[in-house]
Amino acid sequence: MIGHTELGPGGEFDRIRAILERLGSRAAPSGDDCAVVTVGAERLALSTDLAIEGTHFRVGWLTPGEIGWRAAAAALSDLAAVAATPVGVLASVGASREWPEAIVADVMAGVGAAAATVDAVVWGGDLVRSDRLVIDMAVVGRVDSPVWRRGATPGDALWVTGALGAVAAAVRAWEDGREPDRQARERFARPAPRVSEARWLAERGATALIDVSDGLLGDVGHLAAASQVRCVIESERVPVHVAADRPDDAVVGGEEYELVVSLPSTFGRDEASQFSQRFGLPFTRVGSVEEGAGVILLEQGRPVELPAGFLQFD
Amino acid sequence: MIGHTELGPGGEFDRIRAILERLGSRAAPSGDDCAVVTVGAERLALSTDLAIEGTHFRVGWLTPGEIGWRAAAAALSDLAAVAATPVGVLASVGASREWPEAIVADVMAGVGAAAATVDAVVWGGDLVRSDRLVIDMAVVGRVDSPVWRRGATPGDALWVTGALGAVAAAVRAWEDGREPDRQARERFARPAPRVSEARWLAERGATALIDVSDGLLGDVGHLAAASQVRCVIESERVPVHVAADRPDDAVVGGEEYELVVSLPSTFGRDEASQFSQRFGLPFTRVGSVEEGAGVILLEQGRPVELPAGFLQFD
Repeated sequence: MIGHTELGPGGEFDRIRAILERLGSRAAPSGDDCAVVTVGAERLALSTDLAIEGTHFRVGWLTPGEIGWRAAAAALSDLAAVAATPVGVLASVGASREWPEAIVADVMAGVGAAAATVDAVVWGGDLVRSDRLVIDMAVVGRVDSPVWRRGATPGDALWVTGALGAVAAAVRAWEDGREPDRQARERFARPAPRVSEARWLAERGATALIDVSDGLLGDVGHLAAASQVRCVIESERVPVHVAADRPDDAVVGGEEYELVVSLPSTFGRDEASQFSQRFGLPFTRVGSVEEGAGVILLEQGRPVELPAGFLQFD
Repeated sequence: MIGHTELGPGGEFDRIRAILERLGSRAAPSGDDCAVVTVGAERLALSTDLAIEGTHFRVGWLTPGEIGWRAAAAALSDLAAVAATPVGVLASVGASREWPEAIVADVMAGVGAAAATVDAVVWGGDLVRSDRLVIDMAVVGRVDSPVWRRGATPGDALWVTGALGAVAAAVRAWEDGREPDRQARERFARPAPRVSEARWLAERGATALIDVSDGLLGDVGHLAAASQVRCVIESERVPVHVAADRPDDAVVGGEEYELVVSLPSTFGRDEASQFSQRFGLPFTRVGSVEEGAGVILLEQGRPVELPAGFLQFD
């Protein structure tokens, strides 16, 4: 959904978002990951994610099944980011005539496999000709009490699931003509939408939630802007993936599909340990929420000067 | 949705359809226009339509607003084709860096305008970079009693809304470097999804319904195959649009987004006249449903030999 890396922060992003809002039913707070709408008796979360060869991936990097998996997982992560429960998926694929039917079938099988990990099914799709591979995923979930980006409150702590930085390492390896580390490759190829994790956190009082698609700092910036608070990240606390090759990637690398969540101070070490045991996943306190605006990155207690743009999310 | 012109009839189409069915919840009868699924207390119809510059349209033919309108209308026509009521739309757009924000806004405004004609809203979307213009529409409707392709019964008559053949005339003009006739251009640029018409017909006993996206003969072929009947079309009866330049286009031209419907013989001239008065649209009996298989096109009472492929839809 809107909020995608390609548009990034800044004027263009904001104004196109405004167009959608003008057209739409104001279903979601400005720029949130999903539309949440009431259809008859149901409250639905919906999102769509368009991935284009060359812009979002290169065909040589991944198998067709992984391309399908990754596209589906990225879209399903938008549902996780509001603590919705995925139900079904529509997959549109544009593929060239050089792609035999068996390859398109593998893409679809990857979509189906990723959907199955969160108990969603592939409802249907469209298949057309295109000179570049194009995949659009539209995902539908149910949600009674969505957790938005906007609820972070001064005094909350900021936590992150998993460990970051390996996705960027994989991309860098491919771009340099190297084969990535196996674990880094897996992080890129088969992200896991944190659906159950999000619901568990929502039940335990999560005040704001976002998935890491633009990079930790970028997404925390979105959360800070939506919540009208200042978010402070302590860089030493950010969990760096064992397959990351540059620690900075953990802070700025995108398309991780982990969750950043703000939780009240009553959520402590015991609860974090329950989370880790239940999901087999690190859960790390990386910072705090204060009065103010923007994102502060601390290194050994001192604010780091952030690249232009990171403080301009509001 | 599956059934798109680009894949056409034949082995590839059938097998990719089979992949989707294997993955999915068997939500829709084989190859139907929409997935119809139960989500909690609601029965939803969903469809997705991917349109790619070069494959489905050329940018020079249409204004950005018309490109958006047409993409939305084509997807909403899939909802009409099962007599569903549209509720909302997600629009994903891939546009090149040469397209200023104002043009993308115009595309989105076209999407919103087409959706508004059937009381649907734009819930959200995605905007990414692409070297070719790409639009994917995912549409959601409500439906209590879907009308499928499969219900046509020997003894029914086949009817069609509107008049056909002008869309192909517009495309031919553009391909020949001419500006199309104004009415033909309008038929291509701003199709009207026949949502209210479909619901009216469903309430009056429609046994099977399909929209004309692959051409009248092609879509009647789908309907015949799904219903396990033979469909007979009398070519003299097919309503030819005043802006059509070749009468054959009315029989084989695609992307008309009119409806073909089978109705019991109790539906007669009076009812057809009510339809026309209510919707300001011709409603024409073009043929009949018999025992058997395939499509027969009659010219002055004699079967016309159809191009290879037209009798192979089952």
